[in-house]
This record gives sequence, C-alpha cells and structure tokens, in this order.
Amino acid sequence: MVSSLASIRYLTGYTGSNGLLLVTPSESHFFTDPRYATDAQQNIDCKVHICTKGLFEEAAAVVKRKHLKKLGFEPSWMNVDAFDKLKSKLGTGVKLEPVSGIVEDLRAVKSPSEIARIRTSVLANSEAYSKTLRRVKLGVREMDIAAELDFQMRMLGAEKPAFDTIVASGARTALPHAHPTSKKIEANELLLIDMGATLDGYDSDMTRMSFLGVPSKRVNNLYKAVLEAQLAGIAAVKAGIPAGRVDAAAREVLKRHELDKAFVHSTGHGLGLEIHEGPRIAKKEKTKLQAGMVITIEPGAYIEGFGGVRIEDTVLVTETGCEVLTPTPKELVHL
Amino acid sequence: MVSSLASIRYLTGYTGSNGLLLVTPSESHFFTDPRYATDAQQNIDCKVHICTKGLFEEAAAVVKRKHLKKLGFEPSWMNVDAFDKLKSKLGTGVKLEPVSGIVEDLRAVKSPSEIARIRTSVLANSEAYSKTLRRVKLGVREMDIAAELDFQMRMLGAEKPAFDTIVASGARTALPHAHPTSKKIEANELLLIDMGATLDGYDSDMTRMSFLGVPSKRVNNLYKAVLEAQLAGIAAVKAGIPAGRVDAAAREVLKRHELDKAFVHSTGHGLGLEIHEGPRIAKKEKTKLQAGMVITIEPGAYIEGFGGVRIEDTVLVTETGCEVLTPTPKELVHL
Repeated sequence: MVSSLASIRYLTGYTGSNGLLLVTPSESHFFTDPRYATDAQQNIDCKVHICTKGLFEEAAAVVKRKHLKKLGFEPSWMNVDAFDKLKSKLGTGVKLEPVSGIVEDLRAVKSPSEIARIRTSVLANSEAYSKTLRRVKLGVREMDIAAELDFQMRMLGAEKPAFDTIVASGARTALPHAHPTSKKIEANELLLIDMGATLDGYDSDMTRMSFLGVPSKRVNNLYKAVLEAQLAGIAAVKAGIPAGRVDAAAREVLKRHELDKAFVHSTGHGLGLEIHEGPRIAKKEKTKLQAGMVITIEPGAYIEGFGGVRIEDTVLVTETGCEVLTPTPKELVHL
Repeated sequence: MVSSLASIRYLTGYTGSNGLLLVTPSESHFFTDPRYATDAQQNIDCKVHICTKGLFEEAAAVVKRKHLKKLGFEPSWMNVDAFDKLKSKLGTGVKLEPVSGIVEDLRAVKSPSEIARIRTSVLANSEAYSKTLRRVKLGVREMDIAAELDFQMRMLGAEKPAFDTIVASGARTALPHAHPTSKKIEANELLLIDMGATLDGYDSDMTRMSFLGVPSKRVNNLYKAVLEAQLAGIAAVKAGIPAGRVDAAAREVLKRHELDKAFVHSTGHGLGLEIHEGPRIAKKEKTKLQAGMVITIEPGAYIEGFGGVRIEDTVLVTETGCEVLTPTPKELVHL
C-alpha cells in the first residue's frame, strides 16, 4: 500500500491531493475522492475506486475481498490514526508489515525523462533568478524580491516554487531558513536567495549570494571559504562513493577555515518529485551514490549578528563524477 | 506532545518547518534543529532544545528525566515510524495515549486578533483577484493568470498562496481541483478561479466565476442554482446549529434543481493557520458552530464535458448568523 503522494505520482502519474495506491501481485488499485473522479478515470492505468467514505476503508475492503494475507505499508507516510483505522477494518486475517524506502529507492535514481524534466526546472529557476536580480535595488523589501522571483519562475513555466523562497539580507543571512520579511535591503549588506521551481512535477534548488556595495575583507573571506567547500563537495561526487564522503569533503574545508561549527546543516539532499528525497548528503551517511541521482551541494556558514553565506547547486551524479546542472555563475555578485 | 506544526505555531509562535512541543504540568519544552536555533532562542517562550539528533529522541529523554508516566500524542500528526521510534526510546515506564483534537478545538474558535488577521488575508486575496481579473484577455493561458494572482497577493503582503491556485476554463471547470495548464482561455467559456492567501500565517479562501462573452441559458441556470445554494448555506450559518445543517441547506437547493449528484464535495471547512481545519461543513456533521469560527461556504455543481460552477466565501460565525468576510461581488462576471 503506497500512501506517499509523491510515490503515487511516480507510479501512476496522479497529481491530485488525495490518493492511495494498492499494488497486488496481479493488479493495481487506485483510490481517490469524487473531486478527482474524471481525472483519475481518464488518466490512471489502475482499477480506479472513487470513494465517498475514507480511502483506507475502501482499500481495506479490496484487501479482504482479494483474500490478501499480508499488506506492506509505508510507516513514514501513514499516520497513527490512519494505521489504527486500517488495522481495525482489516481485522485479524491480514498482517500489516512496515516496509520503508521501496519506492523511494526507485525514485532516487532518475530516468532520462526525469532528468530532462529536472533540467528544465533548473533552467527556469536560474532564469527567474537572473531576471529578478537585474531589478534588485536598494530599498526594496525582501518579500517583494521573493514575490518577483516566484512570479518570474511561473512565467517561465513552473507550477510553483518548490519551497518557500528564502530572501534574507544583512544579519538575517545568518538564519539558514529565513522567511522573507518587510525588511528593506540596504547598502553594504549580504543578500541570500535560496529558491527552487517545481516544473512538470520536478524540483530544482539553488542558493546564490550577492552584496550591496563593496564587500569587506571579512565578507570576502567567508564567501571564499564556503565556495571552496562547495567546490570540494562537487569534486567529491561520483557514483560508488558513500554520500557521507561528499559531506566530509565540504566540512573539512570549512574546518580548515575554522568555520565547521558555523556549518549547522547537512551538505545536501536528493530532489525530484519532492524537494527533499534520498539520498541524504550528511555526516557519516553510508548510502552509495549512483549515476542518475540528482542531489544538491549546499554548504553554508552562519555567524550570528554578522551574516551567513550558502552556495548551492543541483548536480547530477555520473559514473565518473557529476554534472553541475545549475548554470548560474558563482562569484559573489556586487549589486 | 504536540507535533502538528500549525498547532505548535498556535501555541508558541514558531513558524519554521521542524519542531516538536512537549507541554508538561509545570513547563513547556520546544525542540528544533540547529537551523532554527537563533529564531527559537529569541522568540519562543519555552525551554528550547536545539537537537543535533532527532527531535523525538531528545523529547523522549526529557520525558524520562522528568519521570512523566503518561504522554498524550496526536495520532493524526505522528506517523507510524516516529511513533515506533518514540515508543522504543521511552521504554516501558511511560504510557503513550492518543489524544485528538485538543489544540484543534481551541484553534477552531478564533480570537479577535486572529479574526483581524484573517480579515487582512481575505481583503488581500480579493484585491489580488480584482487586480488580476481586469487584465484577463482572450488567449491568456490559465497558468499565467494563476501566476499573476499569486504575484498580486504577494505584493499585497501575503507570504504565499494558501493552496495551489486553481484557474480552470471551459470544460475544465468541471474538474473541482483543476491545476492551471497552458490552455488558453477562449470566447464563450466559463472561467473558475479558486484562490486563497496566507498572510501573517492566516488563510483566506474564495472562488469566483466569470464568463468570456455572453453566457448561454444553460450556463446562467447552472450559475443561478449554485448561487442560490451558496446563499442558502450562508443563511443557515449561526452559532449553536450543527455544521451538517449548513451543508443540508446548500444541498437541498441543488437537489431542487436536480444538481445534487453534480455536487461532489462538502459545503465547506474551517480555516485559519491551515487552509483546512475544523469544523467540517459536511453531510450529517454534528459539530456545533460557535461564534468566532471562520468557515468557507462553497457549494458547486460539475457537469463532465460541459463545465462546472463553484462560488465560495469565507465567513465568520456570529451568535445571530454570520458575517461574510469576502467583499468580492458574486454576480457572474462577463469578460
């Protein structure tokens, strides 16, 4: 039983907000509510059930009708409430077994057509960034820049931002996940933009920095250290190595610059139908990289009260290394 | 233990994407990861724990250290995986008890300051709609209209759309939850726009219809029937009555017009920090409306191959009836 909507989309093409998929050895059943009846009946290549009661209830009825003895479910994608409901509807004749990561592991390695869609998403995202950056002026609010970025990516074909676009300026760049505020951008400040597009279902993710004026030596040094770490991370990517080695490569550079404690998150993550999917590019992560995985490389260093720097690309793992999909240049832009 | 992010925001003000709240008889503990350290330490009035491992692990350690014997958790907001982890970390000395709806019930009745924020959100949403509608012309793509709507609401102060903005034209209006596509809007077509803003954390929700040209009698009759149902729903709203009665009021009108089978969803839902929260305005729903609840009234009728109509307002329940917060006029606009 597949309950993760992203995995359901991966397997069936369903793009709605309420669905459940039951795969048996002989056939597949898809459950949704009447709002999606036409869409599901026309587009989904399964036995489609339009449920007027809960999806889990109707799925349980199918399981019993088919006399299935064992049902695997996704423990990270089913809440305790749904689980209890399912269990009580199934009764004692069916064994519920948690199985994690089956579809996620398939999804982690992208097909050529998925890679093509991610490329399109990455390009739209970068294009929206350059179009917007040209218009950034002193006195503009962070939230207005974020609105413009999102509008531009939409005009370039994106369905929506892949996550809440981050625009942070000045000391706020030290907050890795800052919401854009009504703060106006001022002279002699860092500006951090972290954005991604969802286009044809597939995500992109990029972070770039700029500076309003001429950066101080301290800013330049911070920037150079993070860029060095990011390039080291990229250089470490290659099919066959454990993901943790990429994280270590970036982290070691920051350590050499005495910035390892300022790097408070992981080096990256897979992305695709979701903005965060496998593999995690994190400390000690043993998962081996495979050709066709698409991941971010995004080290950062954050100094409270001063500011932070993060640089992030979306890259495609290959047999011999990786291809950096993000075309946006990486020098610190002086605005 | 509160794990719903909206409920955590309601109780603590935390606006990030990773948090967990433990309320004990004597004190409250908030758990998040290092990305949100500064924000949490400065703004959250609890004992703040910055976790480098999982939040559930560290929360379990606090539960054990405090010798708590019983821990309530939210079964709809905890997945089976997290539950199993928590259970194993707690060991046998702590009883885990599912408790549903405690914070949700508090959240369903809005305070004056919450109502003020919802009003602001509703007004920005309606303003974004009128600004955009003025620019709609034949040949524009659905997705461009959606992008413009979202941009306008952002320029009016919204953080983001409260949900994926729906723009559907022609026969696509018969899909209650249509994604905007590259389809261009044409003469003699219905245009359905369903949109909401999230502003200062609070949501709004509205659906309006327009027609490109002069509508046929069939379109006009469909529109009039749904409008009559929507007004009947609004007229039924009042503190003290069961929510199901509002649904029945709208549904009866559509039945009289032989459109009850074309009305494939519920009449409405509460909204606030989430776009769907209590109460449900659905068939046979017994929950009693209370003054201060904010709900949508949104009946619709959908005819496959022809088109659909939905009309939706955000309304505030009062002792004597309700206040329609949405200021946008409800006649079928001829574009």
